Amino acid sequence: MEFLLSLVLAVFSPAQTDLSGAWAITVVDFGRPNITRMSLKQTGNTLSGTIGNNQPLEGTITGSEISFTFGSRTAKGRFADGRLAGQVTQGERTLEWSAVRIPPRPATPRTHTFEPTKFELYFTSRVAPVLHIAPGDTVKTWSVGADGVDPKGERRSPGGNPQTGPFFVDGAMPGDTLVVRVNRLRTNRDWAVSGSTVMSNAVEPSHLSNLKWSQDLNTRWRIDAAANVARLDKPPERLKDFTIPLRPMLGCVAVAPAQEWAIRTTDSGRFGGNMDYNQIVEETTIYLPVNHPGALLFVGDGHAAQGDGELTGDALETSMDIEFTVDVIEGKNFGHPLAENGDYLISIGIGSTLDQALQTATSGMLRWLERDYKLAASEAAIVVGFAMKYDVVDLVGTQVSIAAKLPKTALAALRKAS
Amino acid sequence: MEFLLSLVLAVFSPAQTDLSGAWAITVVDFGRPNITRMSLKQTGNTLSGTIGNNQPLEGTITGSEISFTFGSRTAKGRFADGRLAGQVTQGERTLEWSAVRIPPRPATPRTHTFEPTKFELYFTSRVAPVLHIAPGDTVKTWSVGADGVDPKGERRSPGGNPQTGPFFVDGAMPGDTLVVRVNRLRTNRDWAVSGSTVMSNAVEPSHLSNLKWSQDLNTRWRIDAAANVARLDKPPERLKDFTIPLRPMLGCVAVAPAQEWAIRTTDSGRFGGNMDYNQIVEETTIYLPVNHPGALLFVGDGHAAQGDGELTGDALETSMDIEFTVDVIEGKNFGHPLAENGDYLISIGIGSTLDQALQTATSGMLRWLERDYKLAASEAAIVVGFAMKYDVVDLVGTQVSIAAKLPKTALAALRKAS
Amino acid sequence: MEFLLSLVLAVFSPAQTDLSGAWAITVVDFGRPNITRMSLKQTGNTLSGTIGNNQPLEGTITGSEISFTFGSRTAKGRFADGRLAGQVTQGERTLEWSAVRIPPRPATPRTHTFEPTKFELYFTSRVAPVLHIAPGDTVKTWSVGADGVDPKGERRSPGGNPQTGPFFVDGAMPGDTLVVRVNRLRTNRDWAVSGSTVMSNAVEPSHLSNLKWSQDLNTRWRIDAAANVARLDKPPERLKDFTIPLRPMLGCVAVAPAQEWAIRTTDSGRFGGNMDYNQIVEETTIYLPVNHPGALLFVGDGHAAQGDGELTGDALETSMDIEFTVDVIEGKNFGHPLAENGDYLISIGIGSTLDQALQTATSGMLRWLERDYKLAASEAAIVVGFAMKYDVVDLVGTQVSIAAKLPKTALAALRKAS
Amino acid sequence: MEFLLSLVLAVFSPAQTDLSGAWAITVVDFGRPNITRMSLKQTGNTLSGTIGNNQPLEGTITGSEISFTFGSRTAKGRFADGRLAGQVTQGERTLEWSAVRIPPRPATPRTHTFEPTKFELYFTSRVAPVLHIAPGDTVKTWSVGADGVDPKGERRSPGGNPQTGPFFVDGAMPGDTLVVRVNRLRTNRDWAVSGSTVMSNAVEPSHLSNLKWSQDLNTRWRIDAAANVARLDKPPERLKDFTIPLRPMLGCVAVAPAQEWAIRTTDSGRFGGNMDYNQIVEETTIYLPVNHPGALLFVGDGHAAQGDGELTGDALETSMDIEFTVDVIEGKNFGHPLAENGDYLISIGIGSTLDQALQTATSGMLRWLERDYKLAASEAAIVVGFAMKYDVVDLVGTQVSIAAKLPKTALAALRKAS
Repeated sequence: MEFLLSLVLAVFSPAQTDLSGAWAITVVDFGRPNITRMSLKQTGNTLSGTIGNNQPLEGTITGSEISFTFGSRTAKGRFADGRLAGQVTQGERTLEWSAVRIPPRPATPRTHTFEPTKFELYFTSRVAPVLHIAPGDTVKTWSVGADGVDPKGERRSPGGNPQTGPFFVDGAMPGDTLVVRVNRLRTNRDWAVSGSTVMSNAVEPSHLSNLKWSQDLNTRWRIDAAANVARLDKPPERLKDFTIPLRPMLGCVAVAPAQEWAIRTTDSGRFGGNMDYNQIVEETTIYLPVNHPGALLFVGDGHAAQGDGELTGDALETSMDIEFTVDVIEGKNFGHPLAENGDYLISIGIGSTLDQALQTATSGMLRWLERDYKLAASEAAIVVGFAMKYDVVDLVGTQVSIAAKLPKTALAALRKAS
Repeated sequence: MEFLLSLVLAVFSPAQTDLSGAWAITVVDFGRPNITRMSLKQTGNTLSGTIGNNQPLEGTITGSEISFTFGSRTAKGRFADGRLAGQVTQGERTLEWSAVRIPPRPATPRTHTFEPTKFELYFTSRVAPVLHIAPGDTVKTWSVGADGVDPKGERRSPGGNPQTGPFFVDGAMPGDTLVVRVNRLRTNRDWAVSGSTVMSNAVEPSHLSNLKWSQDLNTRWRIDAAANVARLDKPPERLKDFTIPLRPMLGCVAVAPAQEWAIRTTDSGRFGGNMDYNQIVEETTIYLPVNHPGALLFVGDGHAAQGDGELTGDALETSMDIEFTVDVIEGKNFGHPLAENGDYLISIGIGSTLDQALQTATSGMLRWLERDYKLAASEAAIVVGFAMKYDVVDLVGTQVSIAAKLPKTALAALRKAS
Repeated sequence: MEFLLSLVLAVFSPAQTDLSGAWAITVVDFGRPNITRMSLKQTGNTLSGTIGNNQPLEGTITGSEISFTFGSRTAKGRFADGRLAGQVTQGERTLEWSAVRIPPRPATPRTHTFEPTKFELYFTSRVAPVLHIAPGDTVKTWSVGADGVDPKGERRSPGGNPQTGPFFVDGAMPGDTLVVRVNRLRTNRDWAVSGSTVMSNAVEPSHLSNLKWSQDLNTRWRIDAAANVARLDKPPERLKDFTIPLRPMLGCVAVAPAQEWAIRTTDSGRFGGNMDYNQIVEETTIYLPVNHPGALLFVGDGHAAQGDGELTGDALETSMDIEFTVDVIEGKNFGHPLAENGDYLISIGIGSTLDQALQTATSGMLRWLERDYKLAASEAAIVVGFAMKYDVVDLVGTQVSIAAKLPKTALAALRKAS
Repeated sequence: MEFLLSLVLAVFSPAQTDLSGAWAITVVDFGRPNITRMSLKQTGNTLSGTIGNNQPLEGTITGSEISFTFGSRTAKGRFADGRLAGQVTQGERTLEWSAVRIPPRPATPRTHTFEPTKFELYFTSRVAPVLHIAPGDTVKTWSVGADGVDPKGERRSPGGNPQTGPFFVDGAMPGDTLVVRVNRLRTNRDWAVSGSTVMSNAVEPSHLSNLKWSQDLNTRWRIDAAANVARLDKPPERLKDFTIPLRPMLGCVAVAPAQEWAIRTTDSGRFGGNMDYNQIVEETTIYLPVNHPGALLFVGDGHAAQGDGELTGDALETSMDIEFTVDVIEGKNFGHPLAENGDYLISIGIGSTLDQALQTATSGMLRWLERDYKLAASEAAIVVGFAMKYDVVDLVGTQVSIAAKLPKTALAALRKAS
C-alpha cells in the first residue's frame, strides 16, 4: 500500500510551517502500513486534534520537533520537507510512522474523460489506480459487458464482470463514505446476452429435477434504443412479441475491500461489489464505506434491464457508457452500502442468507434515521413499520442481498428535531 | 371428521339409481376417515371414473350391488337410500367405505350475511363450521381485531388473531383449490393499536442491544376515515404530523390444515393462515389448496395499514367489515397460497427462512406459468427473470414469507399457445 | 380441557377446612380454561401463597368465603365439597374460576403394566389419557413400529410414528418439568425396516441429481438379538457381511404441546416429540417442559439403531418393549427438552435450521449451568468452550435438532458454590 | 503467478528430446496465466496424452516443431532449451502458451527444518513461497500463536492467525489433492490465552442480553506439559480446580485459494484455512484440493485444546512445534477438505450456514464411498445412515463448518468390489 502514500504525496506537498490541517498518517506494523486520518490544530507551540476514528490527540511542537499522545501511545517525530515522520510506542514495541497532508477539496470540480484499457477481475487495493480524481469531480467512461466485450464487439478481458477502475479519490480516507452519483448510464451497442434458466438457489430443491431447461434457446437480444426495448434475436414462438423495456443499471459499484482482501468481481460484500441491484440506475446515488486512502472505486457489469434477484444469473449483459460524480463524507459511514434516489432512502444488506441480508438492510435504515434524522428507536420503528418496503436485490454469487426502501414522503412529515 | 360427512349428507341426498356423478367417498382406516372425491359414470351395468387424485376406476353394478377396482384395490358394496357403502381390500386388510353425492353447484349464487358470535384461535378441521356456503356465493361478515375487540370496542375473545369462521364450502374436496375474492374490506371503528418496536429477527443481532425502545410511546391510533389516514392519538413531538394512509388488508385467510393438525392463528403455512400480506386488500383474489371436505375457510386479523414484513409485530390492528365471494377449482391446486389482482399474478412462499420462502414463491410462479400459460421452462425463466418482483411479506411467527409477483403486462405479450 | 380437571378431582378430593396446600386453579376466559398451580398457606383467617409462575397472592377466609388478590386482580369465592370456586376481576371483565387440590405425591411408587390398544398420530392435549400415574411410578409398556406394526407383526395403526399414551402424571402442572427415565428399552420382534436413500436436505442440492438410488434394494432387516446386531435380509453383494450393532432408542418422547396445538407425531418442538436422538437409550433421563395438567406423556417410534441425523429418513424401525419411571420437578423448566445419562448433561435444541437449533442447545446448557451449578456467565463460557461437544440429532421433519453435551467429568472439577 | 513458473523451471530443466512425461503448461489470457498439467507420450513423431482435467490431446513433432489439438483448439510451438512455447487458437483469438517439465517425484524423501521469519495474514497465491519441498518430504517447523507471539514470548506479527509458509510442493498441480500428514504437534511454551465469552452466533438472540460476561476474568492459562493439562493462571474461585487436558491441534491448514483471491487467515473455505477443527491433531492426515502449481501450503493457529465449535472465539491459543509430511494425489480431488485418522474417514463441509456445511460434509463422504470404495448410492446411504457421526467443527468467522465421520470399522465389513 506504500504506493498509495507516495501518490498522495506526489499530488500535494505544501511547505508551510503551521501544521494545522488534515494529514494522512501511516504507522507501519510488522511491515504492514495502517493509514488513517489525523486532524491537527496548531496554536503557538501547542498541538491538538484527532486521529483515526476521532480519537483525541494532544502535543507540542518545538522547532521542527513534535511530540503528541493519543490514548496510551506517545508519538515523537520531526517536520521536514512538508512531511512528518518519527516513532510511536505501542505497548512494549516502537513503530515507525509518517504523515503527509491530505489535499484540500479543489475549489472547482473537473470533468474527466477516461478511456479504459485494462479491466480488473478482483476488487482489491493491490492494483494501481487508473486515475486520480477529487471530490466533486465527474468521470465520463465506459465498461465492457460481463463477458469482457467492448462497445465495438471486441473481447477485451476474460469474462466475469471485468471492471473499469479503480479510481483514486483524493482525500478519501478509511472511515469516510464515498458518494457516487450516477449521472448518466446508457447502453452503447445494439445487443446483449442473458441466461435462460432460473438460478438453482431460487427454486425448491425438489422442483429442480422437473425443470427441463432448453439447450437451444438463443439468448442473444437486440437492443432497440429507439423503441427503448430489448427483444430476443431468435425468439421461440411464444416469445415473438415479448419485449423488455430498457432500464440500464450498473451491476457493480465498489470500493476496495478492507486490508489486503482480493475478492472476485462476481461477488459482493460490505464494500459493495457485484450487487446487481436494478435500482442502481441514472440519478441514483450510492454510498460506500471507505477502507483505503483514495477509496479505489470500481464500476462495471452494466445490465440493459433486470428483474428482481437477477434470477437468470445473467441479466441483459452489455457494455455501457457511464458518467458519475464522486464526493466524500468525512469521518463517518454505515459499514455497508446505501443509496438514494428522488423517491427513496435505500439501505442495502448483503449476507450469507436472505434473513441475514434483511437484518443488515433494516438495521442500516434504523441507524440512518437515528444519525441523520435524529429519530428515537421507537419513532423509527413506527416510520419503518408502516412506510418501508423491501426489494430482493440479488441471488447470484456467494452472498445474497435485500434492500430496505423508505419513501421520502414518509420523512417529509417528520417535525424538525429540536 | 365424521360430522363433516353427515353435514354433506344432510344438504343433498338424491334418490336416483343412475350412479353417474360426483361422490365424496370415505374410507375408514383404524378409525380415521379418509375422504376424497370419486367421479362415476354409469353406462348400463358398467361403471368407470376416477377416485382421489384422478386415479382411474372400473366396475359394475348389478341391482344395487356394486363392485369396482382402482390400482390394486377392490371395493364391493351396495346402493341404498342414496348412499353407497361397503368394504374395500387394502393389502391384507379390509376397510369400511361409504360415499355420498357431492352437491352440484347451485344455479344461482346467494349472498349470506353472517354475524359471528364465537371466534377461533386455531386453524383446524376439528371445529364445526359456522355456515354452509356454495361456490359462487358471497358472504358479508366482520372480524374482531387481533386483540379480540369488536367494532363496538367490546372484548369478544382472547387475543392472538381470533378468526371468523370456518365456512364450509359445499363441494370443495381435498385436492381442489378454494378461491376467495375479497370484494370489500373496510375498517368499522375509529381506532387501532400497533407495536412500537421492530421485530428482533428483522435487525442485526449485534444491533439489538443498541436499540432503546420507548416504554411510554402510546400506540393507540385514530382512524380518520374521512381523511383516509391513521394518526397516533398521543404522538411524540417528531411524529405529530405523521399519518399513515389507510389501506385495509386481511392478515389471515386460511383453509383448515391437513388431517388433524391444529395450528395457532398467529401462524401460517401451506394452508394460508396468518400471512400478514399487505397486498391482500379489496379486489384481491386468494387461491388456497383444499385439505378437507368443505375447505373450512377462516378469515380475520384486519390491518388498517401495514408496511412490508409487519416489522412492528402488530400493524394497525382493528376490526373490519369483510365481504368475499368463494369459488372452487376442482381437482388441482399448487400446494400453497397464490393470489391475483388487476395488475399481478402472485405466488406466496411460506417457509422457515426467507431463502426457503423465496424458493417456494418462485417455483409456484414457474408452475403456474407452465400449467396455465403453457410456457416451457426456459421461456418461463426469461419471463420471470426480466419481469418478476418480490415482496417481503411477513417476518412474524414461526414461519416467514415472500411473494413473487408477475405483472400481467408481461403475460399480455405472450403469443397464444398452439 | 375440562375433563382433565374432573379427572384430577376424581383422584383426590379431601374434605378438611384448612386450605393450605397445592391447588390446580382454573380460570375460564371466553370459554377457554387456563389452569395453573396455586399454593396456599392458611394462618388463622389469613391466606398467603403464590399463583401461576410464582406470583404472590394475599387474602382472607371468613367461614367458607374467601377473597384474595394477586397483581391487579381480585378473586372472591367460597369453599364447598373440597373445592373452591368464584369470580375474578381481570381489567373490566369478570371471569369464573374454580380450584381443586393437587394430589400429594404418593408415599410408595407403583409399577403399572400398560397394554396399549389404540395409538395416537398427533401430539395434542385433545385426547383422553390412557392411564393415570404418579411421580415416582414406573410403567412397563410397548410401542408399535413407525409403520404401526406390533410385536406380533400385526398392523395396528396407520403409519407415521403411532404413539403409546398419553399418560397423565398426577400433580404435573404447567411450568413444571416432567422427568422420564428410560429404565429398559428392548426390541421385541426379529425384524425391522429402514430407508435406503439419504434425506435430500442432507446432501448438496447440486449433488442430488447424481445420486441414483436403487429401486430394488430390500430394506427389511433381521434383528439377531443373540448376536446383538441387525443384518439385511437380502443384502446386495457388497453388504453381505455388513451388520449394525443394536442400540435400541426411542424416536419419540413428548408431552402435549401448549394450549390446543395438534402436531403430527412425525414432528418435534419445544414439547419434545419425534426427536430421533440416538442417545435416548436405556438409562437416559429426559426432561420436558409441562404445558398441561398431567403433562400427557407420549412415547413411541423405537429404533433398533440409528446413525447421527437419521439420514435414511427411516432408521431400523421396529416395535419395542419400554419401561420408564416418571417424576416431576415443580415450578421450573427450561422451555425445551434436556437429557442426562451417566456421562453427560445434554441440552437438545430444535429449530427451523441447524444454526437455530444449535443456539437453543447452547443457551439451554448455559442456563442449566447458571441455574443448577451457579456458574457466572464467563465461567460457564470457559466450561462449555473447552469441554462441550455437539451431536447432530435429527434432520427429518419440518424441524431439525442439535444437542449440546457436557461431560460430567468437567463438572466434577467445579468447586462448590459458596 | 509467473514467478511460480520460473521457480518450477529453476528446479528441474532437462534437455532430452523425447517429450514424453508430465508438463506444466501455461496459457496467457489477457495477461493472466492459466496453468494446468499436460501429460505427453511421444511415439516416433506422434504425440498423444491429456491436458487439464484429463482432456485428450493428439499431435505431432517434426524436428523441434510441435503441433497438437485438444477439443476445438489447436496449439503450435517449438521445443527449445528444455521448454515448449508457442501459440494456441481459442475461438477467434490466439493466445501465447509455454510449458516446462514437472519434476518427477524424488526417489528419496528429505526432511527439512524450517525456521520461519515472516508470517502471512492472507491465504493467497500472491506471496512468494518460503520453501520448496517434494512429495514425500517432511517439514519440521513452528508457528506463532493466533496473536503473533512466538515460543519465546516475543511478538512477531500482528494478530489474527499469522501463518507459517507457504510451502511450495513440487509437482502439485491444479486439480490434484495435497496430502498433509501431521506427524507431531506439540506446544512449545508454557502459556496460552483464550476467550471468556460464548460467540454470539452460538446462543439464542433473545438470550444474549441476559449473559453478563465478566470484564475482569483473566484468560491467561498455564500449560503444564508434565501433567498434560492447562489451568487458568488466576482462576475465579469456582474454577480453581478446573483443568483442561492438552490436545494440541492445528487451527489452520490451507492451500492458496483459487486464482487471485486473497482471504484473511481468520476465514476458511474450500481451500481449507482457519477450520479450527479439534480433530486435526497428531496422526491426522488432511486432504486439500490444489488450485495453484505447488499448492502453497499454509499452517498455523495452534490450539493446546478446544471444545466443539470453538465457542469462546479464541481457544487455548499458543505457539506450536509442527512436523508434517506432504504428498500429492494426481489428477483428482473432492473440491473441499477431507481428513483421516486411525479410526475415521472425515469429510469437512464449510458453508455460510450449518445446514449448508452439513450438506457438503455428507455429499463429500458419499462421493468418497463411491469413488474409492465403489459403493452404489443406496449402499452408501445404508452405511452412512447407520454408522456416520457428525462433528460441529467451527462457528467462528464468516463461514461455519461441520464434519461427517465414518468409522473405519464400518468399512472393514464391506466385501471387496468385484
